[in-house]
This record gives sequence, C-alpha cells and structure tokens, in this order.
Amino acid sequence: MTVQEVKVVKSILAGNDQIAARNHERLTAVGILAVNLMASPGSGKTSLIVKTIEALRGQANVGVIEGDIAGNVDTQTVLRAGASDALQINTGGGCHLEASMVHKALDEFQLNGLDMLFIENVGNLVCPTHWFLGEHMRVCLLSVPEGHDKPIKYPQLFAVSDVVVLNKIDLLPWVNFDKTAFSKSVRALNSTAPIFELSCQTGEGLAPWIEWLCDRHAWVR
Amino acid sequence: MTVQEVKVVKSILAGNDQIAARNHERLTAVGILAVNLMASPGSGKTSLIVKTIEALRGQANVGVIEGDIAGNVDTQTVLRAGASDALQINTGGGCHLEASMVHKALDEFQLNGLDMLFIENVGNLVCPTHWFLGEHMRVCLLSVPEGHDKPIKYPQLFAVSDVVVLNKIDLLPWVNFDKTAFSKSVRALNSTAPIFELSCQTGEGLAPWIEWLCDRHAWVR
Repeated sequence: MTVQEVKVVKSILAGNDQIAARNHERLTAVGILAVNLMASPGSGKTSLIVKTIEALRGQANVGVIEGDIAGNVDTQTVLRAGASDALQINTGGGCHLEASMVHKALDEFQLNGLDMLFIENVGNLVCPTHWFLGEHMRVCLLSVPEGHDKPIKYPQLFAVSDVVVLNKIDLLPWVNFDKTAFSKSVRALNSTAPIFELSCQTGEGLAPWIEWLCDRHAWVR
Repeated sequence: MTVQEVKVVKSILAGNDQIAARNHERLTAVGILAVNLMASPGSGKTSLIVKTIEALRGQANVGVIEGDIAGNVDTQTVLRAGASDALQINTGGGCHLEASMVHKALDEFQLNGLDMLFIENVGNLVCPTHWFLGEHMRVCLLSVPEGHDKPIKYPQLFAVSDVVVLNKIDLLPWVNFDKTAFSKSVRALNSTAPIFELSCQTGEGLAPWIEWLCDRHAWVR
C-alpha cells in the first residue's frame, strides 16, 4: 500500500472505533451484554445462538443482530427459536460488520427488557478481527471438521478473542482432529480465554458455556 | 465510504487487474494451467490439492502457491505429497491473495516442466472474489459440514467460480445437508459451472474431477 492508502485505512478504522465506543456505552448503560460472534462460514454460529436462546428461556431475553453478505434465513431461524428481537444486516459484499452498521441497527432494535445481544458477524476468520463493534465480549467459534491447525493459520482471531468455543464435537470420531494440538496452539496465542467444547447437535457441553455466559452478564447488570 | 475512499479502492483493484493480466499471459505462454482455489478455512483445500497431485503422478507436474495469514504447514504437506515446487505466501493479516504477491512468487518459482499451478487462497468466502490473480480457472470448494445454505449467504463466490467442488461427502450421514437445495442455490447463481461431489478422505468422486481438470489443461497446452 502507498502512504496515502495506509492513511485512508487508518482513518477508516479510527472512525469505526469512535462509533464502537458509543455503541458500547449505550449497551452498558442499559445492562445489555453484547457478544460479537466470529467464525468461519458453516461452523455453527446460528446454531450456538439458537441453543443459547433455548437454554436461557425464562431466565434471560436474548436479541440477535445477524450479519450476512445476503439473505435473511438466520434472522428467521433465531426468531423462531425465541429471540426477543432480531435484525438482519446485509453487507452486500462486505466481508465483516462495522460499528456504524450496528449503530444503525440499535436505533431500530427493541432494546427494552433485553439481557444479552448476540451480534453474529459475517463468516470470516480474518477481517472481522480489525473492526470493534462495541461488544463486551468477543467469541471465536471453531468447528471440529475445520481442523485443529486453524489457530496457526488465523492467529489474530484467536489472539483477540475473550473465549474460544469448539463446536461439533459429535463429529470427533469421524474426522482427524487433535484436541491437544488445538489447545496448545490456542494457548500460545491467548493465555486467558476459556475453551468450551460442545455440540449444538447433541447438546453435549452446552451447560458450562451457558453458566459462564450468565456469569459474564452479571458484570454489566 | 467517502468519494476519496472509493477512488482509492477502485485504483487498488485496477492496479491488481493489470498485474493479474501479466501473470495470466506469462503462465499461458508456457502452457501452465493456473487454478485459484477459494474456500472457507478447513473445507479441505490442501487435501484436494494433495489428492490431485497423487492422482496425477506420472501424468502431470503440479506446483502449488500456498496463501495463508501465517505458518507454512501446507507447503510442507504438498511437497511431501509430491508437488514439483511449492511456495508459501504469508499475508501477515491480509484476508486474500493479490496479483502482486503471485507475481513475486512466480519469479522465485521453478516453472520449467510444470503442467498445473494451484494457488490456494486464504480461507475466506468473501474477499478473494474481488482479486483476480491471473488464473485460468476459479474453483469454489465447499465442505458438507458447512451447510447447504452457503450459496445464499456468500453468493459472489459461487457466481464468479468456473467450477464448484463439494468435499467431505463421507460426512453426509452425520450432518444435515440438503444436496438438492444446495445444487438449486448454486444453479440460481451460476448456470454453467459443473458441480463435483467428492471426499478427499475416502477418495470417492475424485476421478471425474481429475478427468475434468486434465481436459481443462489441454486448453492451455
């Protein structure tokens, strides 16, 4: 990149961070825990949100902002699962969500009575890591069929996340996935993030994730 | 984006296309079929390259350019599998390969006697679609566990690809994947790309892919 290009990119990111800070303040002021969920396409982001909504029914109201290049299938899915409110952001080719998109969505969102807000980012292990949205927590989700080498190839995502969720552990008998190597690679990049192993298909391992999430929600209440 | 920002992005992409055209001419002149392989992280890009190298042993010499954010595990893997030459490009945070990176790699590459060059892009269904590298063929790879809804959510990749490969069909009994819905969504975006269904794990369905690839190689010889 030329010096001019670098300056433009830096100015875009700085502008994003300012809007993100405003989103963060707004959500904190009303005690809503905001979660930025980042993962590859097809790793089970929507499934994790659906299972979380179902597990928290009667305990906590969950809203969802869905980020996708196109389509609104996920918004329909989370509303059917019992989301308090849900809104689709179509980036129209953009590879990540930006704080301004979330800012606009919050204006249209039913925030009253909400406890948690999941922001499902565009399926991408790279670009979303540069764009702070105003979240309290960054969740990195990986699924077993993607392979245990992903922290080595996409280190930034694992380094910036507050928690790592390994999904589709029901497929462990059918694919070559080395859990020890995976944990070791994550730890080399991030010494504090808890790692939850679960299956949205069978429900195995969901309880500790839900417990941890409720614990984090208490921080912003 | 501001008008200034749009201008900078357009100028970057136009510059990329010029370098890509030079890469394309250079590879065509020596009869090397260049393939740009695009997919999510963990869908089996490296496995497809390895299986292709093995199947073509004695028939065609295959070189590989590996694009990753970090690490060189894939380069080691394809060299062990019998790649004629292999070179790692680390983008250092960049979410896609660009023509200038490939141009530089070609200068260092052993092109003599090469029949095909696989360029494994960074795992990402979005950004690589905007950057032409000089390839003759764009391959979109999707794996069964990622779900049949991906063409709806990431339409651009399926629209610009010359061929679609569905990998990990050995996992079909264990996950919810609707092949009819998948083919229908692909066809809505791309009326001509052949769709190959295969498993790099079991070898099922590899033969038609190899045959098709050799047929395409004949075009540039």
